[in-house]
Amino acid sequence: MSLIDSPQSKQVKLFKSLERPKGRRESGLYALEGRRLIRQALEDGADLRWAYYCPDKFRSSEDQELLGRLLDRNLPTHEITERALRAMSHTETPSGWAAVADLPAWSVEDLPQERHTLYLGVYEWRDPGNLGTMVRTARALGAGACFSVGDSVDFFDPKVVRASAGAVVGLPLLELPAADALAAMLGKLGARLVVADMEAERDFDAAEYPDRCALLIGSEAHGLPEEIMRQADLEVRVPMPGGGESLNAAVAAGIIAYRVTRQFDSDE
Amino acid sequence: MSLIDSPQSKQVKLFKSLERPKGRRESGLYALEGRRLIRQALEDGADLRWAYYCPDKFRSSEDQELLGRLLDRNLPTHEITERALRAMSHTETPSGWAAVADLPAWSVEDLPQERHTLYLGVYEWRDPGNLGTMVRTARALGAGACFSVGDSVDFFDPKVVRASAGAVVGLPLLELPAADALAAMLGKLGARLVVADMEAERDFDAAEYPDRCALLIGSEAHGLPEEIMRQADLEVRVPMPGGGESLNAAVAAGIIAYRVTRQFDSDE
Repeated sequence: MSLIDSPQSKQVKLFKSLERPKGRRESGLYALEGRRLIRQALEDGADLRWAYYCPDKFRSSEDQELLGRLLDRNLPTHEITERALRAMSHTETPSGWAAVADLPAWSVEDLPQERHTLYLGVYEWRDPGNLGTMVRTARALGAGACFSVGDSVDFFDPKVVRASAGAVVGLPLLELPAADALAAMLGKLGARLVVADMEAERDFDAAEYPDRCALLIGSEAHGLPEEIMRQADLEVRVPMPGGGESLNAAVAAGIIAYRVTRQFDSDE
Repeated sequence: MSLIDSPQSKQVKLFKSLERPKGRRESGLYALEGRRLIRQALEDGADLRWAYYCPDKFRSSEDQELLGRLLDRNLPTHEITERALRAMSHTETPSGWAAVADLPAWSVEDLPQERHTLYLGVYEWRDPGNLGTMVRTARALGAGACFSVGDSVDFFDPKVVRASAGAVVGLPLLELPAADALAAMLGKLGARLVVADMEAERDFDAAEYPDRCALLIGSEAHGLPEEIMRQADLEVRVPMPGGGESLNAAVAAGIIAYRVTRQFDSDE
């Protein structure tokens, strides 16, 4: 493979384009950056297409080891200079690694339907750090899938991928355009909808959760609209002893999701 | 007051300098950006020194209302152009508001010592978003203070202030340089140390927490060192049904902190 050095090269421009939804949609690809994320993606069976590495940024034997593993898998690997890496990176301080993978195409039919399944969802979240953190929580707690409803940042935005610590790989992820798609998903899965809302009366810790539980968290700014609330079987809130203060949405999602999976454990 | 327009003006340079620890230390000031944050700071009694507003960015009557409140308080308010605002802002898309406040100087003696008090702490957290989110959680759950041990990002970094949604105002915040300062704090408060560690055996949900509970969360990358672990009365972990996956540190802090405050409620 020839060395990639020019910030104007086709490779650099393609990678850079994956920062935007349009670039990902048109190419069917998404970007991964950093040794840890790429190693994780390999282990989780991501459909990696090719990788870039910058030997000038190598700092440990783990870099050589990862390069060996990519070559063993016959994955195209391109050497890249620091100058080109900086031009294509979505981060301010790029590490020596970047890769490109096929966007997965999940459908409702792919989602697990065990007796106890948590589907963790968000409504119109615009903050990529929060969305990635939520996906990471879902993965750590053994949720069956994540979903977004309405105009959320998409799951393969580079900032979401990074905040998810690679959890976007392998976990089923669904983007539902609106409330009717949510209704259709709930019907197919036989799942019930639980919504978290600051105005709800029920303390989440005292609630009984359904076996197939779609837990939907509203945005911090706007909460949840009427056409979603109508579909809810249960509304819960996290009590705030600190008064009118609110929790970060990803933290609230984590606290409630933990409680749901804990109930599943004790039911089994 | 005269209009501030030049990106080279003293005011712009001062505000910009508050992005770095050195600038804050030398001036004894910190920066706040955005209408919501400034309004919150006013309500929570921050020692605001002066404010900047950019009428070209005003979008609602709430802007006029905030301006009125600042004038009522005789706070110096400087009109600023969009050009100057962009030059001084720490965010990519500045809103029409910025302000400067005195850095608070908390000491251990200022911390509440109620029968049930949670002190929420971090060890060497470098991510400002996570630190701010943790402070916000502490505030929402009614914790008595936050503290950091070792080389953490500082509480008045603009990204921390923003992620805290203003919770850094009013909540006692302590920066402890090392393990011996932690020991001194625990002694003065009569608090016991609980550490969260992925390797701990005790499930956090089955643990019994001390009445004055200093809960310390390690960094995601490095956990907690021996000189901290030695001081711990209790080590807990959040079980991860999803296998080897980990939670974001701010989410883990939220899940455990919630459990501690819930125990306090039921003890009372």
